[in-house]
Formats: sequence, C-alpha cells, structure tokens
Amino acid sequence: MEGKTHNPMNDPRYCGIPTFMRTPFTHDYSDLDIALVGVPYDGAVEARSGARQGPRQIRDMSSMMRMIHHVTRINPYELCKIADVGDVHFKQIFDVMASHADITCFYEKLYKSRIVPVSAGGDHSITLPILRALAADQSLGLVHFDAHTDCCDEEMNSKYSHGTPFRRAVEEKLLDPKRMIQIGIRGAANSDECWCFGPKNGIRIVYIEEFTELGVDKVIAEARRVIGGGPVYVSFDIDSIDPSFAPGTGTPEIGGLTTIEAQGLIRGLRGLNLVGADVVEVSPPFDPSGSTALIGATIMYEILCIIAERLNSISLT
Amino acid sequence: MEGKTHNPMNDPRYCGIPTFMRTPFTHDYSDLDIALVGVPYDGAVEARSGARQGPRQIRDMSSMMRMIHHVTRINPYELCKIADVGDVHFKQIFDVMASHADITCFYEKLYKSRIVPVSAGGDHSITLPILRALAADQSLGLVHFDAHTDCCDEEMNSKYSHGTPFRRAVEEKLLDPKRMIQIGIRGAANSDECWCFGPKNGIRIVYIEEFTELGVDKVIAEARRVIGGGPVYVSFDIDSIDPSFAPGTGTPEIGGLTTIEAQGLIRGLRGLNLVGADVVEVSPPFDPSGSTALIGATIMYEILCIIAERLNSISLT
Amino acid sequence: MEGKTHNPMNDPRYCGIPTFMRTPFTHDYSDLDIALVGVPYDGAVEARSGARQGPRQIRDMSSMMRMIHHVTRINPYELCKIADVGDVHFKQIFDVMASHADITCFYEKLYKSRIVPVSAGGDHSITLPILRALAADQSLGLVHFDAHTDCCDEEMNSKYSHGTPFRRAVEEKLLDPKRMIQIGIRGAANSDECWCFGPKNGIRIVYIEEFTELGVDKVIAEARRVIGGGPVYVSFDIDSIDPSFAPGTGTPEIGGLTTIEAQGLIRGLRGLNLVGADVVEVSPPFDPSGSTALIGATIMYEILCIIAERLNSISLT
Amino acid sequence: MEGKTHNPMNDPRYCGIPTFMRTPFTHDYSDLDIALVGVPYDGAVEARSGARQGPRQIRDMSSMMRMIHHVTRINPYELCKIADVGDVHFKQIFDVMASHADITCFYEKLYKSRIVPVSAGGDHSITLPILRALAADQSLGLVHFDAHTDCCDEEMNSKYSHGTPFRRAVEEKLLDPKRMIQIGIRGAANSDECWCFGPKNGIRIVYIEEFTELGVDKVIAEARRVIGGGPVYVSFDIDSIDPSFAPGTGTPEIGGLTTIEAQGLIRGLRGLNLVGADVVEVSPPFDPSGSTALIGATIMYEILCIIAERLNSISLT
Amino acid sequence: MEGKTHNPMNDPRYCGIPTFMRTPFTHDYSDLDIALVGVPYDGAVEARSGARQGPRQIRDMSSMMRMIHHVTRINPYELCKIADVGDVHFKQIFDVMASHADITCFYEKLYKSRIVPVSAGGDHSITLPILRALAADQSLGLVHFDAHTDCCDEEMNSKYSHGTPFRRAVEEKLLDPKRMIQIGIRGAANSDECWCFGPKNGIRIVYIEEFTELGVDKVIAEARRVIGGGPVYVSFDIDSIDPSFAPGTGTPEIGGLTTIEAQGLIRGLRGLNLVGADVVEVSPPFDPSGSTALIGATIMYEILCIIAERLNSISLT
Amino acid sequence: MEGKTHNPMNDPRYCGIPTFMRTPFTHDYSDLDIALVGVPYDGAVEARSGARQGPRQIRDMSSMMRMIHHVTRINPYELCKIADVGDVHFKQIFDVMASHADITCFYEKLYKSRIVPVSAGGDHSITLPILRALAADQSLGLVHFDAHTDCCDEEMNSKYSHGTPFRRAVEEKLLDPKRMIQIGIRGAANSDECWCFGPKNGIRIVYIEEFTELGVDKVIAEARRVIGGGPVYVSFDIDSIDPSFAPGTGTPEIGGLTTIEAQGLIRGLRGLNLVGADVVEVSPPFDPSGSTALIGATIMYEILCIIAERLNSISLT
Repeated sequence: MEGKTHNPMNDPRYCGIPTFMRTPFTHDYSDLDIALVGVPYDGAVEARSGARQGPRQIRDMSSMMRMIHHVTRINPYELCKIADVGDVHFKQIFDVMASHADITCFYEKLYKSRIVPVSAGGDHSITLPILRALAADQSLGLVHFDAHTDCCDEEMNSKYSHGTPFRRAVEEKLLDPKRMIQIGIRGAANSDECWCFGPKNGIRIVYIEEFTELGVDKVIAEARRVIGGGPVYVSFDIDSIDPSFAPGTGTPEIGGLTTIEAQGLIRGLRGLNLVGADVVEVSPPFDPSGSTALIGATIMYEILCIIAERLNSISLT
Repeated sequence: MEGKTHNPMNDPRYCGIPTFMRTPFTHDYSDLDIALVGVPYDGAVEARSGARQGPRQIRDMSSMMRMIHHVTRINPYELCKIADVGDVHFKQIFDVMASHADITCFYEKLYKSRIVPVSAGGDHSITLPILRALAADQSLGLVHFDAHTDCCDEEMNSKYSHGTPFRRAVEEKLLDPKRMIQIGIRGAANSDECWCFGPKNGIRIVYIEEFTELGVDKVIAEARRVIGGGPVYVSFDIDSIDPSFAPGTGTPEIGGLTTIEAQGLIRGLRGLNLVGADVVEVSPPFDPSGSTALIGATIMYEILCIIAERLNSISLT
Repeated sequence: MEGKTHNPMNDPRYCGIPTFMRTPFTHDYSDLDIALVGVPYDGAVEARSGARQGPRQIRDMSSMMRMIHHVTRINPYELCKIADVGDVHFKQIFDVMASHADITCFYEKLYKSRIVPVSAGGDHSITLPILRALAADQSLGLVHFDAHTDCCDEEMNSKYSHGTPFRRAVEEKLLDPKRMIQIGIRGAANSDECWCFGPKNGIRIVYIEEFTELGVDKVIAEARRVIGGGPVYVSFDIDSIDPSFAPGTGTPEIGGLTTIEAQGLIRGLRGLNLVGADVVEVSPPFDPSGSTALIGATIMYEILCIIAERLNSISLT
Repeated sequence: MEGKTHNPMNDPRYCGIPTFMRTPFTHDYSDLDIALVGVPYDGAVEARSGARQGPRQIRDMSSMMRMIHHVTRINPYELCKIADVGDVHFKQIFDVMASHADITCFYEKLYKSRIVPVSAGGDHSITLPILRALAADQSLGLVHFDAHTDCCDEEMNSKYSHGTPFRRAVEEKLLDPKRMIQIGIRGAANSDECWCFGPKNGIRIVYIEEFTELGVDKVIAEARRVIGGGPVYVSFDIDSIDPSFAPGTGTPEIGGLTTIEAQGLIRGLRGLNLVGADVVEVSPPFDPSGSTALIGATIMYEILCIIAERLNSISLT
Repeated sequence: MEGKTHNPMNDPRYCGIPTFMRTPFTHDYSDLDIALVGVPYDGAVEARSGARQGPRQIRDMSSMMRMIHHVTRINPYELCKIADVGDVHFKQIFDVMASHADITCFYEKLYKSRIVPVSAGGDHSITLPILRALAADQSLGLVHFDAHTDCCDEEMNSKYSHGTPFRRAVEEKLLDPKRMIQIGIRGAANSDECWCFGPKNGIRIVYIEEFTELGVDKVIAEARRVIGGGPVYVSFDIDSIDPSFAPGTGTPEIGGLTTIEAQGLIRGLRGLNLVGADVVEVSPPFDPSGSTALIGATIMYEILCIIAERLNSISLT
Repeated sequence: MEGKTHNPMNDPRYCGIPTFMRTPFTHDYSDLDIALVGVPYDGAVEARSGARQGPRQIRDMSSMMRMIHHVTRINPYELCKIADVGDVHFKQIFDVMASHADITCFYEKLYKSRIVPVSAGGDHSITLPILRALAADQSLGLVHFDAHTDCCDEEMNSKYSHGTPFRRAVEEKLLDPKRMIQIGIRGAANSDECWCFGPKNGIRIVYIEEFTELGVDKVIAEARRVIGGGPVYVSFDIDSIDPSFAPGTGTPEIGGLTTIEAQGLIRGLRGLNLVGADVVEVSPPFDPSGSTALIGATIMYEILCIIAERLNSISLT
C-alpha cells in the first residue's frame, strides 16, 4: 500500500487509511502467512446490534498498535508476512444461511492458501462458518473467551443465532468437545441448557467464579491440559471482558475479566498450534470512546504475536 | 394502569413506567379509538441498525408530551379513547418475511376492531406489512415524509428491505400511486431507479429543493390536492428531518426539513381521513441525547391530535 | 485577577481560570458598571434537573467570546467596567423560599451599588427573587424569550416552581404586564391557564407560529412598542432556542428559535433601558458538547454589548 | 401485563414496556411476595442531581436480566410471586419532609401486606422513610454498601439530606447500630464527624483499604457476625462501586469496589433474613452508556435471588 | 483495491476499508483526473485541536455517499477518474514551517500531473501551502466559506497559524484579492484588523447578516461576479456551518449557515474553473456522532460533482 | 478569593469559580508553601492531542475534593498555605522550545520563593522544563508513573516531544538515573530503545507484569529503596492508569494500574522529600464524563497530603 521505504507504523497514529495494524492491504494471497480479516456481519444478534460496524472501528483503533511486544519482544512483522485482506463480501445480508455461506467461501480460499486468519467480527455466529472452512479436514480444539457458552440449541426459534455457534460446531464435528475450554462464563439465563450442553459433551467450562479463585496461571495450565498438542482455534468474545473495560458490546454482563487477565491468558497460549482466531461482538454504537475497539485491536495483536512466533519456529524447523 | 383519580400526565415527567404519551397500557381492544403501537424490528436495514430500540426510547421521551395542543387547543385524550397496546411480538426475528407476517397479524386485529393505529418503528420495512392489514379492503393514499423514496426494486438482493416498501405496496395495490406524495427527498443514489419509479407511476415527489422553494403552505395545498378525500396513511421517516435535529437514524442525509416545517406540514393534514400513521427509523444508539426520540414522540403527538379530532367529528355526525 | 499588562482575553481560549468572558473576578463593587453573576440553583425544577451546573459550564465556554462585536463594533469592555462577581451563596439549598431569599439579598447589594447584573442560571425560578431586588422601586417591563410562559399558578402543588415566576412577579407588581412580551412560546400543556394568564392581564404573547410568520424585524418592532421607554428586564430561557441548537436543557420543546433569530432579536433591543438580564435553564448534564453553554455565553455577550452601549451613552450625557 | 402463555422474559431484550426485570406490572398486592418499587426522588442531593431518573433507566436496562442465576441456579420467579408495583407518587416534590412522608406511606401498605420491597432510587435520603415503614415494629440490622457513611449530622444546614439518613435512622431507633456494617467507605471529608458517628455508636465500618486487605470472604464473615440472625435491610449505594464501572452517580469517589466483589458480597448474604433492600444514587445523566444502570439492575437481581430463596424456604417450613 | 467486477459503492456502507467516497486507493498518478487527499495536520491551531483526526473520520463517514447527485444527476465517477491518494506525510510535525513544506511538496506532484486535488484537513493553515503549489504559475480566485476571515496578521505571535493563511496568500500573490469572496463571516474579535484587511485589499466579505438578507441566489450571483472566469480555489471551513449542524470543530461560532444553504451555494459554482478545493477544521474529538464529518464528506461530494462535470466538459471540447 | 468567614470547600460542589481544590487564587507568592499550577500545553504530542484543556477540566472536577484524608486524616490546608497560582502563560504556543522556556521561567520564580509546585498538565513534555527550574541546584530522584518510559531519543524527528523528556532530563543531569523508578510500563513499541535506555543508565523499570506479581507494598519498598533520602520529584502520567478508569488520554494502553493501586503507591511515599509533582496527559476531549479528570484531581490531592505533611513536619523541627 505504501512504498517499501516508508513504514506507516512509524507515522503519527492518526495518519493514513486504517488497515488492521497499519499492515499493507492486499488481495494477493501468494506468499502471505497471516491474514487479517474483517467480517462485518451482525444479522444473527438477538439483543443490541451494531457489531457489523466492528471491523471498521477495530481497524481505526488498531493504528494505536506498534510492532515489538513489551514482554516477549516478539515483532510479528519480522517473523511473518502479515496483511489486511479486507472484508468478507456479503451478497444477501438479510439471510443468515446465505451470509454464513459467504463467510465460509472466503475462508476456504485462505485455508487452501495455508494462510492463518485472524479475524474481527461481527457477531459470534460468524465463528461457525469460519470453522466450516478451517476444520474441513479435522476437528479442532477451542479456547473460547466469553460471558456466554453460546451453546444454546435455539435462540428466537433459530438454530443459527449468535447464541448457538459452538453447539452447531460440535454437532458438525468441527470442534472436538474434549479439546474445548470456555473461560469467563457468567450471567443469568432463561434455561440451563446453555450451561448443560458443555458438561454433557466434555467441554471444560471455567465460570468467572472459578477463574477468580484459580487465577491466571492455573487457568492457563488447565487450558493447555485440555487443548493438548493438536490444532486449536481461539475465539475471543469481547463480552468476556468486564463492561467497565469493554462497554461496546450487545449483551454486556457485569463481573467479567480484566484486560490484564485476558492478556495474561493469551500469552499463556504461546507455542500452541493456533490455526486461526477471531475477536467478535465489538459493537461501535455502544463504544463511543473507542475503548472497546482498542481492546479488540490489542487482543488481535497479542494473538498475532503468538501465531507469528509459532509459524516462524515451524518454518525454521 | 393507574387509578382513575390519578392522571400520570400530571406527574413529573421522569416518573412511572413509560408507556407512549403516558397513556394506559392495555390489551383490551373493546372501546378503544386509537392504539399506540411499538414495532421493534430493524432486520431489513442495509446501513446502520438500531431502530429495533426505537419504540422504547420514543416511549421514554414521550413522557415529555402533555395534553392540550398549543395551536389547535385539541386535547386528543378528551376526544378519543387512546391507549398503548404494546409491541408486536416477533417469533422469528432473523427471518424478514416471517417478521412481516407477525406485524400484519397484529394490525389485522386492530383493523377488525376499527382502531386507528399510530405506530413507532422500527425500520421502514414495517410499513409494508402494516399496510397489508390496513389496506385489506381498499387502496390507500399516502403522505410520506422521507429523505429517500424507499421505492427501490431491490436492495442488497432483497425485495423486502427498508429501501423497497412503497414499491411493493404499489405493486400489491395497497397504495394508490396517484394519491401518493413523498416530501423531503434528497441524497445521492447508486441508481436513479429509486427516483424514476414514482414519476412513472404517478407518485408526486417533492424534493427538498422544491420544498424549500414552495414553502410549507404550498406543499400542504399540493398534498391535499394529491390525496383528495379518501382514506390516507401517513408514514414519517425521521430521516426526513435534518440530522442536526435528528441524528439518531441509520442513513442520515444532510439538508433536510426543520422540525417547525414538519410540524407545519402535519398540522396541514387536519380534517383528512387518516386511517393510520407511523414514525420510523428512530435509532437510539445514534441518539445519545434522546433528541431524535423527542422529535419522534412529538410528531406522534401532532398526528394523534389530527386523528382524534377527525374521529371525534365523525362520531359526532 | 491578572496584572494590567496582561489581558487574558488574548490568551488561547483554554487557558486560565474560567470567569465569565475572562473578565476579572472581584468582590469589590465600587466603580463597577456591570456585574456578571452565577446563580447555581435548580431546586424548583419539575422535569430534568441539572441547571445548578449551568454557571460553571457557561463560564467555561464563555472563554470562546472575544471583545469587539462583528456587527455593531461595540467593545463593551472599553465602554464599561465589567467583572465577574461570583455566585450567589446558598445557605439552605433544600428550601426554595430560603434560597430565593439568598438570591434577593445578593442582588439588593448590586442594586444599591447601581450595578446592572447580567446573570447565568440556574432554573427559571431565580428570576423572581432577582426581580424582587431590581424592581424594589418601580415595576419593570420584560422581554421574555421562552418556550413556556412560566405563568402557571401552581406546579407540583407549589407556587414557586420554575413554571410560575412571571405570574408571581405580576402579582407582586414587580412587572407591569402591559409592558411584557413573551417570544417563542410553544409546546403542549395539561391546562390552558399558562396561556390564558397573559391575555387576561395584557401580556403580549408571540407564539412561535406568529414569530415564524412575522419574522425578526416585525417582532422587534412589536417588542419595542410594548416595552416603550421605561426600565426593562430581559429574561432568556435557553429553551426558547430549538433543541437542535440547545439540547442542554430540562424541558426541551421542538420547533424553536434559531440562534440567528435570537441574536437578531437581542440586537433589536439596542438603546432600550435594560436594568438587568439573565440566561437560564442551561443544563450541562444534557449538553455534553457544551454547545448549549456556548449559546448561553454568546447571548450573554450580545446582551452585554447592548447594556454597555446604553450605559455609556447615558454616562456621556 | 401479558397473557400467561407469553413470557416477556423470552422476548428480545429491547421489546416491550420496561418494567423491572420484565415482571408483570400490578397494583394488586394480594398474593405478592416481593415488590419491585421505583422511588424517583433526588430532592435531597447536595452535589450533582439526576437520581430522580434512576428508576426509569434501571427498569430499561433490567430487561437484560434473565431468570436463572448462573452460580446458585436460583430462579426467583419460580420461588416467589414478584411484580413491579410502580413508583411512589410525590405530591410536593419541592418539600423534602413531605416527599419522605409520601415514601413512608407507600411502603407502609407493602409492609402491612407482608410484601418484601426491593427498591430503586432515587437519592440515598429515601432509605430513611422506607425504614420508617419497615422498622415500624422493631429495629433492623443493616448491610450498607457505600463510599460514604451517610452519617453526617447536617449537610447544607439540613438534617434530611442524602448524607444523613443513617444517623437519623439510628436516632429514630429504626436501625440497631450494633447490627450495622458499612462497606466500601472512602473519600475525603470536610469534617470527621461522618466517620466518628459509627465507632461511637457501635457501627462496624469497613473502609475500602480494610476491604482490600481482608478480601470478600472475610468481609462476608464479618458482616454475618455483625448482623446475626435478626431482620436486616440491605442498602446499596451505587457509588460503593468504582466509578470506572459506575460513572453514573452524583458523588463519585475513585478507588471503589469492583462488580465481582459486590456480587460476591451479596451472594454471601444467602440465608439472612432480608426484610427489604434498595439500590440508590444511579444518576442517568452521568451514565450515557447505561452501564451504571445495568449494574444497578444486576445488583437488584442478585438481591432478589437471595430474598426469594429465603422466603421460599420459610414458606416451605 | 477491488476487482473490477466488484464496486464497493454497492456494498453496505459499513463494509470495507474506508477510503474517501469508497474510491480506489492508489499512488499511481498517471491517468487520474481528481485526487482525494487527506492532510492530517493541526499544529497551527490556537483554540481546541483535533483536526489532525479529520481525514480519518471524513473517510469513514464518506462511505455514506453514493454516486449520482439527486439534483444534477451528475455521476462524477463516470465523468472522471477519481481516487484516494492517501495522506500527506509529515516528517517534523512539531514544526509548522517544515510541515507546510511537506504539504506543498505533496501538492506540487499533483499539480505537475495536472490532477485536481480535493482535500480534507486538518486546520485551515494547510490551505496556504496547498496554494503555494497550485498557484505556482498564476494567482487564483477564491471562494471562501468560513466564520472567520483568517486574515489576521499574527496569532499567538505567529505569522503562520490557522488564523492567517489568506493574508499570507494575498501577500505571496497566490490569491488575487479582487477575485476573493468570503461567506458566512461572524463572531467577535479582539481586534478589527481581521475584518479590515479584506476591504482594504478588495476582498468581498459577505457577513452572515448580509447573507441572511440576500439569500442563496443573490450571494451566488455576487460570488460569480467577483470570481469571473479565471481559475478559482474553494476553501470550505466547516465552522461556516452553524454548530448545531457541525459541532465538531475547534472554534465554533453560533449563528451560521445551514447545510441546505451551503449545498445551494456550492451548486451555484457549477461551470466555474475550479482548480482545487478543501474542507477543513473538522475536529472528530468534538464530533462524537460523526455528523460534522458527514457534512464534510457531503460537501466534498458536492464539490466533486462540480469539478468532474467541468473537467469532463473541457476534455470533451 | 472569598472572605475568611466563608470557606468555599463547604459550598455545594458545583458552586463558584473552579480553582484547583477550591483553594484561593493568588499571584502573591509570599507566605505560600505549595502552589497548584496549570500548564495548558500539548504542542509536543505525537498521537491524539487535547491535554491543553487538562488544567481546566481538572480544576472543575477538583471541586469534588474535600479537606481531610480518610486514611491518614491529614488536612493539608491546615498544615500548609496552599493556593492556585494560575496557568503558565505561553507567548509562542507553536514553538516547542519557546514554550518550554516559558514554563521554566514560571517555575523558577516558584523555586526561588521556596514554594513546592504541584502541577496539572499538559502533555508529558512539560516535565522537562519544570525540572530545569527545580533541579537547578542538584539532580533529583524521580518516581514516575506511566505506561511509557518517555525515554526515546527522538519522536517524529524531534528531541523534545512528549516521548523524550526523561532521556533529556538524564542527559541534562536534572535527574539522577540511579534514583529513578518507572512504574506501570507496558504497550508495544516500534523500537526497543525506549526500554533499553533505562537499564543502561541504572533506571529501575517496573513493568506492569512485575507490578502485578509483586503487589503494591513490595513496589513501594522498592521505590523507597531506589529513591533513598534525597529530593525527589513525582511525575504521574494518567495513562499509567488503565483506560477503563482513565479513558481521557492521548495514547491509552490497556492493562494498566487500578486507581486503588495508584492511591496505595502514592500513600507509600509518605515522608519522602518531595520537591514537586505533576499529573499530566489528562485529555478532556476523550473524557466526556470527566472521570479521568476526577482521577487526576484525586491524585493531586493525595500528593498534596504527602507534601503538606512533610513540609509541616520539617517546619516544626
């Protein structure tokens, strides 16, 4: 997007057209390691909508990100080729199934090009069609940060709302429930089925109360035990974070994770075989200061560091 | 909702459970003249969503309304029985057609009970299913306030978005295009079909430029000429009003009507045979101060006065 | 407050401690012509409170004001000695009568010192105790800008709310109803007594509809005819202005004056014998951008120019 | 309010007229266990007002609540009959004593009907007149969450401001100081009398510093020790919570409780004999995102679970 | 940026990376007619800063624009090649002169490529270095929309603040004062030199009062008379618009133009020889709703239509 | 500013002209112990500006402060003479070096008068010219709270941006790096030089991760060990605090200190020889609720208590 001699990451943060992390924008998938993708879709939201505007605001705030991680000293842009590949295009935004198909189609191309996608949603329903592409050949493990299990059978008489993706993904064998962990779960429900599906199927649920008791390090250990060595996807619903940090989301639940805890948890995934990740449910209309999008962008950056380090170490061996 | 001796309209405006205009809430349709209805649906919006939250915020701000109109001295509550009958219930919010069917079903009951509905949306797609109920027996005239004609053939590959309702309504013969007037039209388009459908079918379009030239009184005269004496529906898209007054909407277009002009236009409809009306596209997430909802509530009140006066004069004769 | 060699009005607008118009702060009443006063009281508000914070926010935004008027080329600071004399102190803020007494007491000192007060409220109830001081020796005329007549007999079972001051002032013979004009009146009411008191007593009411029809110049002529040559007070309720300009107020009514119209009206009072003025009902909690306070500050500045010119011309003769 | 076959709690959260927790609205006190009450009064506030609008915004955000508690699996709506009984009506809002009398009168009816009230304020002065009704027959214990002790003798020369209710309640023997605990106290004061009254009278004060040192579990133990087995009232001032979570309040003090801590503390009261509770000082004008009201609603829900469980267990025995 | 078969202007407005008007982003100047440029610089602002963030927010809101103008039916994208060429890069943002040199350098390349620039600022100081590039060969005429003349000699002891550009441009013979018109001027000043420079040098100033009296059509006629047939630059300071429409600016002055008036004025420039244009002083930190940026984007679109039509007509002849 | 009989700290918080902490405003330096100073300068900011408005908003929110500290029971106003001495005046705000010289000049007068300054910025570049005055006679120690080390060599090709002051201060021997500690450091960087300068020169850096591990008490111990007994300056960048508490700043970094931690750390400095302190980077345009300014004001108050206690104990001995 810019000449090689000019690195936009050295510009003042308010300059230039906002791509994710100020990476180059490209449609050329050859020679790319990690793709940053926007999925501006919130047609499966039951409560307050607005996550359709998430990718834009996350891109905007992601200009606040810089290159070298202050703890790990990883510079993902030195380790891997990373670019913003734009947004999924939707042909029929008023039809959930058709929109999900558009998403799957987009990620199939990335998957075939062996590019690891790190995505910004959109509502949480988008993870299902992403997984349909990425788990085409084998079931994946899942590290899932959320206030809600998103394992309802139906919501508003629909099987494909943002409250159901992980139940569908298990049913469709995209995810291996034995290698799934859900962290930060809380908030009342009208039926306990959303909490029962997990235990029945072997999913490890860490409610916020258990998290508070165990602390970051023990939950990391538990996550690594559950996930083991196979391929794993990370899905980060911004409402896992407490609404004082992240008010910009559709179904906030008080009593959530702090950002320090979330950053610690993600850093604890170093070395795992991440085949993709997403940050979802950032809803700009409820985030006037942009602070939620800033968290979303920083979480994407933290994940990017983990993936880049791992991809680089594999390619070296 | 309250004892007869206590009139909630005399309470401080911040007190009590917010029904429309602080009228009684009821499900009893016997002996009711005018029903205030909420239609919390925005599943057919292409741009920024949020109008699903419109009825709630309009109800809240409508507590600022009082009883006697300062110009006409009409007190609609003395002339007619008026109540808040609640919101349309939606069974499948992710399916546009099913949701529209739920709306039609709700209004058919009102229509059969000979109750005139004044509604708060919701996106503009809701007017089509309302008209399917109210125009069951004859085509209606239409006074349509909007920045957009909403006469596209398709939007985002859908025949039933919030950009298409009036084309569908003409095709379905719910509206008589010869008795339709659209006021306040403006803003660029990607195709001119949205502006051509009207002239081809005899709809009178008053662009904002013509409005500015003619002024309120002449546009009222023109509207009354077009509408004539038959039954007429009033559909008021809040984006007809300039965004400086009404920022809380999904597709704002600068250069719109002032509220004084809008109030003048509605008062100019006195005596017409209004069989229903709606105020749509109030989107609270973009209306932090509530000023757009205040306009929506005031427009509903202005319309209420017109309808109550007419209904009362008919019942007296 | 500052050395004579340094004029804070030449500083960047965000610098310094915010006094009204960046004038000196003083408690010394000798040798002062015009006093700028804050009246942080909103204990008599029925609807949304917050005007207690008005003087502070108006002071803050008044730093945007400069010295020479662009139309009249009046520089009030050259013509008169003008200072910020601080806020009225309240000893019992939970008691309306006691608070009103505190206000009267404060203004009596100014009146005895022959200083003309230009005040920032506070709710509209404050005008009554101000008038008790300023009209101690004779009834005054009134130019009153407002959406409401504030001539109710009682509000919430109180004779002394912000909806009643001008009825009380007429009853107490502080104002001469024959020399009163109210401009911008609009909005529904629960009883018509608020509109009937005026005509019964000879007050000239210019509803917004008549204003729109007549235009600024004719309304000025009418105001000057009504007021004649005697002493006159100007009371400017910010809700006379349309809420798109001035959202920060407790009881907004759509369809109001524009700021250009308001500025024109005030300039039309040039040469009249103004003995005091106030700008009331600016409520910062509903004015996040400060735009309402900016209007309040500018209106104060416009009035200041009129008063300074007149005072100066008198002192010269 | 709705037919029995339709449970509004299953609707999308933005639908319907907002009663507390989407419970039925009723004036029928027969056969009711717990009443949800709004007390829209802030006439005794010294600092920033706005809590008069609290009940409305809490009702609105309480639609985000659902039925089954994720930790205790209590469904209060199955255990007890719970309804929204509306707001206290005020006849003279400008008179603190008269308004307090209106409150007491309202709660006396509930008390006589043996209904447990869970209330949303309003400023903290409302707790005194509530206690006058509920402690008519015996002194109560108190668990009090707050940044301030609210035990001043006078504030702004008034004995009945929002800074004095608990001193008055002790003096009036409505509360037994030996069975009182205040949690979260912090912030500077102009006199130390607000902190000295407690120790002198046997009230246990847990300043935020001690709370941080002890942690949730030990403070719960201490609270249960202090309270013992008798009847107890819970008063939750939202400013006990840190302003980063709960900005929407009149006198914020930095360095407060987290919501996780507050939820933990309330859950620690399980089994105690709660005869009533309130959540006060939610001030919507300073809470544009609604996050403070969301906390208020969730705290009400948490308390509701505790009370419903206890009432149910008593009625079973 | 996108494949030819996909036109991003047909996407939902919230999709994709926000370039100006959703035009392609390019650094290739060959075969380009009109360049959309961002100038994220506000280092010469005396009052409230933030215009550095203007280009980003205008780009974001410009996605609301579509292709065909509703009045003129011009589709600029069919008539000309138009692209977003990115932002000026600044090497020393803390040095006004160096930053201005960076700007001039950027526009010299466009000028040499015979590309007409339409720019988004930034503060008003940027117009001077733009003119240094565009008026390299001859003095230009100017149509200047603003609340302020920006013709001070010095501001804060600087010759190159945002209050001085047009005085410098006249002195540097970049502008021909006889062919300059300034529209919308208003607001107090600390010295009258800002108003005197124009008349002394033959600049036509239309104060807002004269504008209100004359109306749009007569001011257009006057502007065309003043400008005549030579090359002309259009500089649109967003503070020419009233702050109720455009609060997002650093030095708002009440009593300004409406957007309808501004649109009318620009359309009145049809056929003139525009060699460049800018929209400046949009300050996102004071524009939380984005309404000011929406106006900025729409004004850019209106200007784009005028320029594209003229360029096309020339190339045809 | 007020008569001796009236203490403005006993007024309602919204009353009066806002000086820091409602202390008297004075230009008389005789007989003063501690000066509260505003430094409204943000000309050296790379990212989002706005800190120029910091002193005003901190002054406004500082009215929420009262006199006696709830933990230490220190009343600084009894122990020392404390006043608001106004803002530094800037003669050339567009020139960084000249502005820094203006700052130094202002503090030199305070230093010569043996007055301890507690300042509100402004961007972090202001600390360098303050230190040039205060460290005129000897190098100082530093307790530095920040997300960033501000030890870059250059930023945007400038040696004197808000990212470089502490490197310059070490180079200029104003600070003794062996007696410097930086707490709360975090966030990615484009070069590691900002983190390397400290260790190379003996500065103790406590990254947020180490802080979280050690806890408040151990970090206090470490700070006291590093600082020792000599004179020390405290510089508190508000972005050390997490953005959920303090969104109003230009370069927010998630994962920061809580306010309880920050208060604890400052209280841990009791008894140290503080010769001055500042709170910087509060940026009101990004702080609409004022919560960041409230934190800034409270931190100033906490520091004031420490300094007053120490000064008083010295003067007693």
